[in-house]
Amino acid sequence: MKNLIWILCSMFLITSCNSNPAPKTTKDVKTTTDQKKERPSYAVAIHGGAGYQTRESISKEQDMEVRSALNKALDAAEEILKKNGTAGDAVVAAIQILENDPNFNAGKGAVFTHNEQNELDASFMDGATMNAGAVGGVTNIKNPIKAARAVMNHSPHVLLVGKGAEDFASLQNIEQVDPSYFKVEERLESLRRAKAQEKAKVSKHGTVGCVVMDQSGNLAAGTSTGGMTNKRWNRIGDSPIIGAGTYANNNTCAVSSTGHGEYFIRYAVAHDISALMDYKNLSLEEASNLVINEKLVEAGGAGGVICVDKDGNVSTPYNTSGMYRGFATSNARGVAIYKDEEMK
Amino acid sequence: MKNLIWILCSMFLITSCNSNPAPKTTKDVKTTTDQKKERPSYAVAIHGGAGYQTRESISKEQDMEVRSALNKALDAAEEILKKNGTAGDAVVAAIQILENDPNFNAGKGAVFTHNEQNELDASFMDGATMNAGAVGGVTNIKNPIKAARAVMNHSPHVLLVGKGAEDFASLQNIEQVDPSYFKVEERLESLRRAKAQEKAKVSKHGTVGCVVMDQSGNLAAGTSTGGMTNKRWNRIGDSPIIGAGTYANNNTCAVSSTGHGEYFIRYAVAHDISALMDYKNLSLEEASNLVINEKLVEAGGAGGVICVDKDGNVSTPYNTSGMYRGFATSNARGVAIYKDEEMK
Repeated sequence: MKNLIWILCSMFLITSCNSNPAPKTTKDVKTTTDQKKERPSYAVAIHGGAGYQTRESISKEQDMEVRSALNKALDAAEEILKKNGTAGDAVVAAIQILENDPNFNAGKGAVFTHNEQNELDASFMDGATMNAGAVGGVTNIKNPIKAARAVMNHSPHVLLVGKGAEDFASLQNIEQVDPSYFKVEERLESLRRAKAQEKAKVSKHGTVGCVVMDQSGNLAAGTSTGGMTNKRWNRIGDSPIIGAGTYANNNTCAVSSTGHGEYFIRYAVAHDISALMDYKNLSLEEASNLVINEKLVEAGGAGGVICVDKDGNVSTPYNTSGMYRGFATSNARGVAIYKDEEMK
Repeated sequence: MKNLIWILCSMFLITSCNSNPAPKTTKDVKTTTDQKKERPSYAVAIHGGAGYQTRESISKEQDMEVRSALNKALDAAEEILKKNGTAGDAVVAAIQILENDPNFNAGKGAVFTHNEQNELDASFMDGATMNAGAVGGVTNIKNPIKAARAVMNHSPHVLLVGKGAEDFASLQNIEQVDPSYFKVEERLESLRRAKAQEKAKVSKHGTVGCVVMDQSGNLAAGTSTGGMTNKRWNRIGDSPIIGAGTYANNNTCAVSSTGHGEYFIRYAVAHDISALMDYKNLSLEEASNLVINEKLVEAGGAGGVICVDKDGNVSTPYNTSGMYRGFATSNARGVAIYKDEEMK
């Protein structure tokens, strides 16, 4: 009888507490997590955009260039983190390298707007203070991620756009360049193809981003992009939107998004991953997979995220055919492009 | 013995399932909810800004003008809702009236930027489709809420800013005005006082917003503002940021924010209220109070929200000394300004 009562109690417990089920993890999508069990002393993950990367669409040369750039960005972040530097410094160092590399749609090599301009968006968030800064639609700031962080540190605002953001960056002595610096011929051809099809297109060479847990356990996230090929009317995507393209909260995780920005805004993707961890006790991998491979897939939103949690776990789900991605912790490291490979 | 086992089981149940506790509702803050128990067939709530409204700081005349305007906005929404019109149409109708009224910091009567301009932000979200649109930093669109909805309906984008947003609105035949239309002398004086103190100030006559549940059970939310007095560098606040200033999801609630926008962006306030309902099963009142009266208070962020859930419940928490606010359902109606009054 006692046993029966305990069984009934247990059954009741299971049903009554099952309001927070873990979502199923889509098995065919790689969400490489640091395999070693011990907590790393630091962790960094980066992306160079989720999109239609396949072995057929990317040349051998470009494949190698991208892997080399991802490794350089990881090197820059690790150099800082190994010396006990801050998560924020590591995020900016890694993103700056990707912004300067024309293989990515951020800084030099940004996609073109309908009017054949380059308009750049970036944001930065600090998980310890939950302070944030962002710039949108800037045309002459060499490294928009630096301007985003300066907005956080040196203005009372979070988001500055256009000419005002450029004036602010100038006052902060952030390096400015002639807009022609950003132009890469291949991107202009992409625009002309998109215009021929009369539509705004998600670039196959997306956004760049970086998320970090430093040795003090602080989190930071940053994202930088040229946006969507053939975008019009001073469109701002998700990258400078805190809660959509970027989020960091020391209690949960740091997230950087890449993909069809309009969906990432509407579904508040970066904040949603944090909320699922905070309110449903999902793991980083469960939360990020639920949002990217269930919610966004159902809505029709293509893209991915990189994220790191407060224990240095890394998750990099995406629902596209590939994502330029990499991670490094005190225990392991890897980069990857295609769906059929793990980061190594 | 059996009783003891049951008691132990019950205790275990209570402790093990208590990961989702309801937050305490701050008792001295009014969060008037429709008192009648039966589900209303429709519900609308509006705000004209949370801030430092006190009986001492507002003249009798202004008090009456504001109450009259709030009632006119409720009339416009109710006229649509009683005829089985859509939540979206009601949101735009109510906000348009508040934008046209110089007593509010939106449309005519917007606050001034550091450069003595009026730069307007607005957003709109449809809870049935989770589509959204927004404009930021526009200077010649008479009713920015209309432009926000047009971005949703007639562009592939969610957020357009500045000149591009104005060009888009022009193509959509949305009424444009000379920028001087928005100017009200009293607001210019506020700017000059703020400049004398060398700081950006949250206006005491804030943002306007509207949230609706229509007779089909669909939700919509909209927000419109002139932003923060003395804002600089093309600052964009939370009002055009989906997830911060505005959110609507038929499964949870519709939210419109007012207050110190930088905090509302960093804490993804509108999406957070939705997430707390979705993931922790909090009621609308519990979720909105937790965010406004606990999280934001702890962070130092002044402001409030109006929200309506899928059952037509209304909650209007704010952590400032007052908020211009009103609600109407098929069962009840009320407007209020100060903290010591309920909406009636």
